[in-house]
Amino acid sequence: MATGKGQLPTMHPVTGFKLGIASAGIKTPGRKDLVVMEIAEGSTVAGLFTQNAFCAAPVTIAKAHLASTTPKYLLVNTGNANAGTGEQGLSDALQSCDVLAAITSVKKDQILPFSTGVIGELMPMDRLLKGLPIAAAALSQEGWADAAAAILTTDTRAKGASLQYGKGSKITMTGITKGSGMIKPNMATMLGFVATDAAVDAELLHRALRLANEKSFNRITVDSDTSTNDAVILVATGASGIIINEESFDQFVAELKTVFIDLAQAIIRDGEGASKFVSVVVEGAVDTDEALAVAYTIAESPLVKTALGASDPNWGRILAAIGRAGLTNLDVNEVQLYLNSVLIAENGARAASYTEGAGQTAMQPEDIEIRVSLNRGQATETVWTTDLTYDYVRINAEYRT
Amino acid sequence: MATGKGQLPTMHPVTGFKLGIASAGIKTPGRKDLVVMEIAEGSTVAGLFTQNAFCAAPVTIAKAHLASTTPKYLLVNTGNANAGTGEQGLSDALQSCDVLAAITSVKKDQILPFSTGVIGELMPMDRLLKGLPIAAAALSQEGWADAAAAILTTDTRAKGASLQYGKGSKITMTGITKGSGMIKPNMATMLGFVATDAAVDAELLHRALRLANEKSFNRITVDSDTSTNDAVILVATGASGIIINEESFDQFVAELKTVFIDLAQAIIRDGEGASKFVSVVVEGAVDTDEALAVAYTIAESPLVKTALGASDPNWGRILAAIGRAGLTNLDVNEVQLYLNSVLIAENGARAASYTEGAGQTAMQPEDIEIRVSLNRGQATETVWTTDLTYDYVRINAEYRT
Repeated sequence: MATGKGQLPTMHPVTGFKLGIASAGIKTPGRKDLVVMEIAEGSTVAGLFTQNAFCAAPVTIAKAHLASTTPKYLLVNTGNANAGTGEQGLSDALQSCDVLAAITSVKKDQILPFSTGVIGELMPMDRLLKGLPIAAAALSQEGWADAAAAILTTDTRAKGASLQYGKGSKITMTGITKGSGMIKPNMATMLGFVATDAAVDAELLHRALRLANEKSFNRITVDSDTSTNDAVILVATGASGIIINEESFDQFVAELKTVFIDLAQAIIRDGEGASKFVSVVVEGAVDTDEALAVAYTIAESPLVKTALGASDPNWGRILAAIGRAGLTNLDVNEVQLYLNSVLIAENGARAASYTEGAGQTAMQPEDIEIRVSLNRGQATETVWTTDLTYDYVRINAEYRT
Repeated sequence: MATGKGQLPTMHPVTGFKLGIASAGIKTPGRKDLVVMEIAEGSTVAGLFTQNAFCAAPVTIAKAHLASTTPKYLLVNTGNANAGTGEQGLSDALQSCDVLAAITSVKKDQILPFSTGVIGELMPMDRLLKGLPIAAAALSQEGWADAAAAILTTDTRAKGASLQYGKGSKITMTGITKGSGMIKPNMATMLGFVATDAAVDAELLHRALRLANEKSFNRITVDSDTSTNDAVILVATGASGIIINEESFDQFVAELKTVFIDLAQAIIRDGEGASKFVSVVVEGAVDTDEALAVAYTIAESPLVKTALGASDPNWGRILAAIGRAGLTNLDVNEVQLYLNSVLIAENGARAASYTEGAGQTAMQPEDIEIRVSLNRGQATETVWTTDLTYDYVRINAEYRT
């Protein structure tokens, strides 16, 4: 299942950024599973990676390479996460960089590797390596849609976002992402690759990435499980000739956020087993931490999520989640709870104006907003999540088999 | 579903403690749903209550009454939690104390009320009050099994534990509990009532309760949802004439822990949709907090829980959970992971000796132990949990309807 329309939008090419794919048969013969991305000379690159201590081998290598030089190629495979693979995994990830470096005549530390798929299996290196020249030969600025398909795992649809802004000369921003389960990114998502033809120096680019990521990939959860392989990469090729400086930075970040939020929401719309797209908005909190604590406690409550799947306005479970979020001196009589625009609860109880019929009606749409007003401060945060359905259990009971 | 045998053991009566039940029709006509318990003069009573800020009206009243006097009666209903009911809920809980106080000729603050069931509905007071004289008239030292049945909600079986210890004159301890979903007690369980005929002064009794509770009800999770109504009550009637002092305290607590752990594990064995009983043991941790952080992150991971339900030794998901538990400077190469006695992973990867066949075999039993050695300290903790199955989703999508 999945929610929303789910077609890829028009994917504007980004001059200076090419993508090529291959079917290496890493897990499933014949499926697109390997992507090489080429970054033009003079580009800047910023990246954020999972905080999981058991981070995958390619994450370790990609972080080290990004710290030492400006990357020229990104190498992505699906079907195998190369995580929980110890020394052999590190050696395999390095070897894939070595081989692609030889094919493309760059240094191996100019290549960042990324993997997604099953954890704990060794990478079938022979198959992966055979795919590299094929993917490299297919490099094209038009490769976004193919690449979006080639990085998926349990996802049911490709995920992309793209926009152009500016008067006269325009800046283009285009990105793809993947992810459906094991989704609670902590500084990054499963995998996300975004390129722009703006010219942005490395320090500004990293700031922009952090700002956009914080309000997008760091605001989603399917199942509270942070992956071992999360990474998001932002490339600025500069090909548009438009330079981003402190003056134009805010608009650049605003546009970038639009792309990032589109991508992050696409993951939630395709969340494993999802039949609802749920926005949890917490307002009137003392600070961001408090708003997020309440929002995530609601968004990750199995009882709230099963009620959402049943379209049951079981607001008692939402109150119970708010109550256990660990807030200091929470006055429950000040809390107001809305489902979409319907006031459900206030003064510690069902609202006088509330009817079960209104609650039932509010729960019918595919898109649901749960809004909590704590009425004790000025901070507001939004987290996006899914419901919990039979299909989530089926998918995760069957995956690997 | 549920795991293990599930019959009530022999429930030894506790002299000085009586239980009486009635069918008040609070939610379902005809079912046993009301319990009155009588505490003999001279007893001591200790209690622990939910930390949920949205605690139910009866929790608020019970805490206040317990602080002001020694209780003479406990009043428990199932079918309606009287939570999320605001001022009316408090007034209803007080009225139920008033009426029982009149029937039994005690003061209303000598009565502790407890409720469990659906959140957010007003209590049907007429039906509850009509049941009170019936339950009071049925008071008997033999009432444990009936009471164990009358406090259940989505539970599929009654839960009790009972033992006697000592040479010559014996001390008896008997208790009942309920709970199946919304289970992650924070200082208490859904509801637990334990009585002993030992003579224990109030301060010692409270210490004993805290110690036993910490290693039992505070070590279980079905779905990470802390209820609004959790409470556990320990009564010492003194009828055995055996006085517990500092010297005999440790043995008393050890025996009490046995009863409490039996009760807490019974909740997990009857966890909503449970097909596995899972012990998560974390050893070699720096301290208790760290051991519990890892244990709960594993025990509450939807991905680990669905794999357990599928009997799939998907150890990569367990490593991923350990990795996101927030430990400082975790050296993943030091971590060892066992399923029952099978070493699954070490040095950040699958163990050399491990075979998929051995993993599959280890996952077949109903009782599974996941053991993690962090190898960086001396602390060990155990948490008990269930798997996540279709039936959990079904039960919680259907409950309320």
